Amino acid sequence: MNFEEMKRNSLELIEKSKAVYLTTIDLNGRPMTRAMLNLRNLEQFPEYKNFFKKQQNKFSIYFSTNTSSSKVKHIKKNPAICVYFCDPEDFHGLMLAGDGELLYDKDLREALWLEGGEKYYPEGIDDPDYTVLRLVPDYGRYYYHLGKLDFELGEKK
Amino acid sequence: MNFEEMKRNSLELIEKSKAVYLTTIDLNGRPMTRAMLNLRNLEQFPEYKNFFKKQQNKFSIYFSTNTSSSKVKHIKKNPAICVYFCDPEDFHGLMLAGDGELLYDKDLREALWLEGGEKYYPEGIDDPDYTVLRLVPDYGRYYYHLGKLDFELGEKK
Repeated sequence: MNFEEMKRNSLELIEKSKAVYLTTIDLNGRPMTRAMLNLRNLEQFPEYKNFFKKQQNKFSIYFSTNTSSSKVKHIKKNPAICVYFCDPEDFHGLMLAGDGELLYDKDLREALWLEGGEKYYPEGIDDPDYTVLRLVPDYGRYYYHLGKLDFELGEKK
Repeated sequence: MNFEEMKRNSLELIEKSKAVYLTTIDLNGRPMTRAMLNLRNLEQFPEYKNFFKKQQNKFSIYFSTNTSSSKVKHIKKNPAICVYFCDPEDFHGLMLAGDGELLYDKDLREALWLEGGEKYYPEGIDDPDYTVLRLVPDYGRYYYHLGKLDFELGEKK
């Protein structure tokens, strides 16, 4: 599998995965994983298609999350995170890693507002408990059956 | 949801999940996740049912892996790991965390030998590239819809 094939397969996996697994490093230096909504899933979230099309780094991952959540506390202390996309049926997987960024821009909050988001953020788009988390990964690993392929993405920070 | 219910649901999730997501901390201190075979999946691996029944800690997780793999190198440097089980259909999840142990006992290697394991370990049960990784978790977090429940499991190390 060459880099172009791997990239194509990876993007397809990102756009099909039902969930994405986000890992932060907790305040004691231990990893902690949880499932998150995969905003890049085209079937579940067609409304974000154009937003992601405009991203310079095609592997950029965004989450909306609660400012008060443990993951935000973890990232403030240690920004190193990774995300994992997987098709458990055929054992393809994609790990992307880098530093998570906590963003509060109004434009981003609007662009990524979830339909029915008041369930998570009762005060709406301006709810101070609403944070956008971005990962512009600087490296990744693609897994397929018994093989794997490591790759770098742009400048290391 | 009380502790007993959570425990029952967690064990059910462990025994049904198609894959388990294992995270180690790499040599640069960054998290790295990959999917692993879930040896506790009763449908896929009924042959291990008795083995797991005999475990004192009902949340003990075992993997077979290559001694030469990056995860083994990570754990030798930093044993802090976590695993995540998930049903992405209804967004239930279980995170278990603690220190990973690398084990080489003959009995364990035999008990956990995979049918067709020569694909991974050409020299068979005694292949020096065959390692058993165990997590006896000391804490966990159970996720259900919008809720979550933290719990401790036995003595902290």
